[in-house]
Amino acid sequence: MSTIVLYSINRTAQTTVRQCLIPYSKGASRVDSHLSVFLKTSVRRLTSLPRVRWVPNSTGVRRGAVLVAGAAATVAGFVASATHFQRAEMASVIPKTEEEDTEIAEKCKTFMSPPCTDVKVLQQRKEEMCTRMEMLIMETQAEFCRALEEVDGGKFKVDRWERKEGGGGISCVLQDGRVFEKAGVNVSVVFGNLTEEAAKQMRSRGKVLKGKDGKLPFCAMGVSSVIHPTNPHIPTVHFNYRYFEIEEGDGTKQWWFGGGTDLTPTYVNKEDGAHFHNSLKEACDKHHPQYYPDFKKWCDRYFYIPHRGETRGIGGIFFDDLDSPSQEEAFSFVKSCAHTVVPCYLPIVQKHLNDPFSPEEKDWQQVRRGRYVEFNLVYDRGVKFGLATPGSRIESILMSLPLTAKWEYMHEPPKGTLEADMLEVLQNPKEWV
Amino acid sequence: MSTIVLYSINRTAQTTVRQCLIPYSKGASRVDSHLSVFLKTSVRRLTSLPRVRWVPNSTGVRRGAVLVAGAAATVAGFVASATHFQRAEMASVIPKTEEEDTEIAEKCKTFMSPPCTDVKVLQQRKEEMCTRMEMLIMETQAEFCRALEEVDGGKFKVDRWERKEGGGGISCVLQDGRVFEKAGVNVSVVFGNLTEEAAKQMRSRGKVLKGKDGKLPFCAMGVSSVIHPTNPHIPTVHFNYRYFEIEEGDGTKQWWFGGGTDLTPTYVNKEDGAHFHNSLKEACDKHHPQYYPDFKKWCDRYFYIPHRGETRGIGGIFFDDLDSPSQEEAFSFVKSCAHTVVPCYLPIVQKHLNDPFSPEEKDWQQVRRGRYVEFNLVYDRGVKFGLATPGSRIESILMSLPLTAKWEYMHEPPKGTLEADMLEVLQNPKEWV
Repeated sequence: MSTIVLYSINRTAQTTVRQCLIPYSKGASRVDSHLSVFLKTSVRRLTSLPRVRWVPNSTGVRRGAVLVAGAAATVAGFVASATHFQRAEMASVIPKTEEEDTEIAEKCKTFMSPPCTDVKVLQQRKEEMCTRMEMLIMETQAEFCRALEEVDGGKFKVDRWERKEGGGGISCVLQDGRVFEKAGVNVSVVFGNLTEEAAKQMRSRGKVLKGKDGKLPFCAMGVSSVIHPTNPHIPTVHFNYRYFEIEEGDGTKQWWFGGGTDLTPTYVNKEDGAHFHNSLKEACDKHHPQYYPDFKKWCDRYFYIPHRGETRGIGGIFFDDLDSPSQEEAFSFVKSCAHTVVPCYLPIVQKHLNDPFSPEEKDWQQVRRGRYVEFNLVYDRGVKFGLATPGSRIESILMSLPLTAKWEYMHEPPKGTLEADMLEVLQNPKEWV
Repeated sequence: MSTIVLYSINRTAQTTVRQCLIPYSKGASRVDSHLSVFLKTSVRRLTSLPRVRWVPNSTGVRRGAVLVAGAAATVAGFVASATHFQRAEMASVIPKTEEEDTEIAEKCKTFMSPPCTDVKVLQQRKEEMCTRMEMLIMETQAEFCRALEEVDGGKFKVDRWERKEGGGGISCVLQDGRVFEKAGVNVSVVFGNLTEEAAKQMRSRGKVLKGKDGKLPFCAMGVSSVIHPTNPHIPTVHFNYRYFEIEEGDGTKQWWFGGGTDLTPTYVNKEDGAHFHNSLKEACDKHHPQYYPDFKKWCDRYFYIPHRGETRGIGGIFFDDLDSPSQEEAFSFVKSCAHTVVPCYLPIVQKHLNDPFSPEEKDWQQVRRGRYVEFNLVYDRGVKFGLATPGSRIESILMSLPLTAKWEYMHEPPKGTLEADMLEVLQNPKEWV
C-alpha cells in the first residue's frame, strides 16, 4: 500500500513537470521529506548491491537513467538479475488504445473521485506520461472498486486527501462487507522538489543531477490495493503500479515504472494458483517472454519473510526500475498489468463466494493474517518509508493491514493437514503455469 | 520480550566467564551473530548520539566501561540525560539478602524449570554476578508465573530450549486462560565470543578491546514478559531485566544492567496508574532519588510510536547501560525492580477480575492491541534484533504479540468518550505519582 515511484528526464519535455505543478505551486518548493528518506535509503542499498540496469538495444532508452528503487520496492539482496534483457528483442511499440483517446473529462466522471490533478490541467497535457499514468491509476482504482462492490454488495468509503507538500490521494475502503473484511484501494499523486541532500546522494552514486536554481522537480504516482476477504477460501490479493519522473535544470528527464500483483491464499488451490499466474503471464508475454519468469522470481524473493523462512503468499509478479525499452513500451506493459487485476482475481472470488468454512479454517486464516502483518510492518519498504516520513497519511499506509489477525504461540499445523500443505508451498515457492 | 544484555570485565574474575562456558563449551567459540547485529547497530547509534556515561564519584566504577545498549534498549534519540547522577550521593552498598544465601540447589527446585546453567556450575561460582543474576531472573519468572497461575487457574506451558551457539532459555506461556488471553514469561542466558567485527566496531567508538587469541567471551541474560489479559479493564503489563558482561584478554571485565516495567491499559484508571507508578517509585527511591523521575521519562520516550504520535501505554520505568555506582548497587536496584513486578501488577488484575465489559470495549482493546503490535514490530529494538538474527528463537521473540489484534480504517473515538480520554493520555504522557 505504498505510494510513489518513478523518475524521468528527457530533453523534449522540460515543461511537463512544471505544468504538473501549476495548480499546486504553493508549497511545492518545499523539501519533500518522504522522497528524501526514500532516496537516502535507496541510494544506500544500490551502492552496496550489484547494480540493476536495463540497457536494451532498442532506441529511445536514456543512458545513465537514475535507478532509484521506489517505495514498496526491492529489498536489499532481492534485486533481480535482469541483465539478460540487455540483448533481448523487445516487442514493437504498442499504439495508444482507443480508450486513451476518449475525452479526459468524460472518463474522469467514471472515477471514484475527481482525480488528484485538476481536470483542465490533465486535458492541457493529455499527451504527457504523467497525465496518461494518472488516468490509468484512477481508472484501475475505479474498475477494481466497482468489481468488488458488485460482488460484495457494499460501497467503498472514498477519502480524498491533500498533501501539504504537493499533491494528494484518494483512499477507497470497504470494511466489514459481506464478502470483504477489509478492502483498500489507494491512489496517490505527489510532486515537489528534490532536496539538496537527495541530489547530493545521487551524486555520490556517480550521477550528477543539475537542478534549476538547485531544485529538481519530481512527480510520483501510483495505485495500490490490498483486499482481505472474510471467507478463508477466498485469497487476499495485493497490487501496486507506480510511476516516477524527475527533471533536471536543462530539461533532461529521468523516469521509471514499478509494480506487481500477488496472491496470498489461506489454503492451497492449484486451479486458483494456475489461473492467477496464467493471467499475469499472459499480460507479461504480450511484452517480453522473460518478463513473467523473471518478475515471478522477483516477487517470490520480495515477499519473503526471513524470520519465518516462508513467503507471504504464492506470489505473482513484481518489478521495479523499469525504464526500458521505451517509455511507451514500459507504459504499455504496466497498462496490461493493471488491466489484468480484475480478470486475475475476481473469478477466484466468485468461485469461492459460497464455500463453507469452519472456525478452525477461520482461525488458520487469522494466523496467516498475523504473518501478513509481520511482513508489512517489518519488511515492506513502502510501509517502512511511509511510517518514517513525518506528515505521511498513516491510515492510507496501514490500510494494507487486515481487519483482524492472530498470534498463537508455537502454532504448528500437524503433518498431512491442509494447513501444513499451505506452509510447504510457502516454504518452497512453486511454479504455477 | 527481548533477551540479552550486559557486559562486565574486571581483573579478579578472569575465570568467571570460562566457568560460565564449562557445560556448553562445544560451539561456544562460534561467532555470536545476534550479538554481532546488536553491537553493530548499537555502536552506530551511540556514535551518532550524545554519549550517556554515568561516572558517579563512588568507588568501584570502571572508567572507560563499554556502553553498548542492550536489545530492547534505547532507541535513537531516546537516550536519557543521566549526567546529573555524576555528582549524586549514592546509597551505601546493600548487603546480600538472606534469600541469596539459601542453598542454590534448593532454590532451583522452586523454578519453572531447571536453570539454563548447570546447578553444579552455579554452586561452584555462587558469588559471581552471572550466577546471582541467573538466580534472580529464574526466581522472578517463577514468582510471576505462580502469581498469574493462581489468579487465572490455568497452567503455564514450559519450553526449555537450547541455543546451539551457547546457552538457551526457558519460555513459559499461558494462552487462552480464564483471565489471560496470552501470558508469556521468558528467561534466556546466552554466551559465546565476540566476533572480530564486533570488536572492530567497538574500536571505532574509540575503545580498544583486546581479546585472548582474538576472542572476547561474553555472557548475557535476562527475564522478559508481556501479559495480555482478556478483560479490557485489566491492563497489559511488560517487564524486562537483563545483565551483560564481556571479558578482555587481560581479564578486565565490562558489565551493565538494563530493564524496566511498563503498563498498557485500554482505559484510563487513575488509581491503577498511581498504584503502578508508586510501586515503581518506591523501588527506585530505595536506591536513588533521581532513578524514578529519570527512568519514568526514559520509559515514556522509549515506548513512543512516532507514526501515531502516541505512547504504547502509560509507561513505568525504563533504563539501560546501568554500570554504576557499583556492580553490587546496580544489582541491588535491579533486584528491587524485579521484586516489584508482582506487587505493582497483581493487585490491579485482582481489582478488575470481574469487571463486566461490552463488545465495544473489547473492540477498543483490540484496536489498542494493534498499536501494541505496531510498536513491537516496527520500533522495539529487542524484537528487531531478534528477527534480524539467523537462528534466534522466533516464537520466544514474538511471544510479546497479543493473541488477537485489529486494524480498523480511520478509527477515531468521538470526543468525550472514555476511548478518547485514553488517547489523550497516550498523546500527552502524565505524571502518576
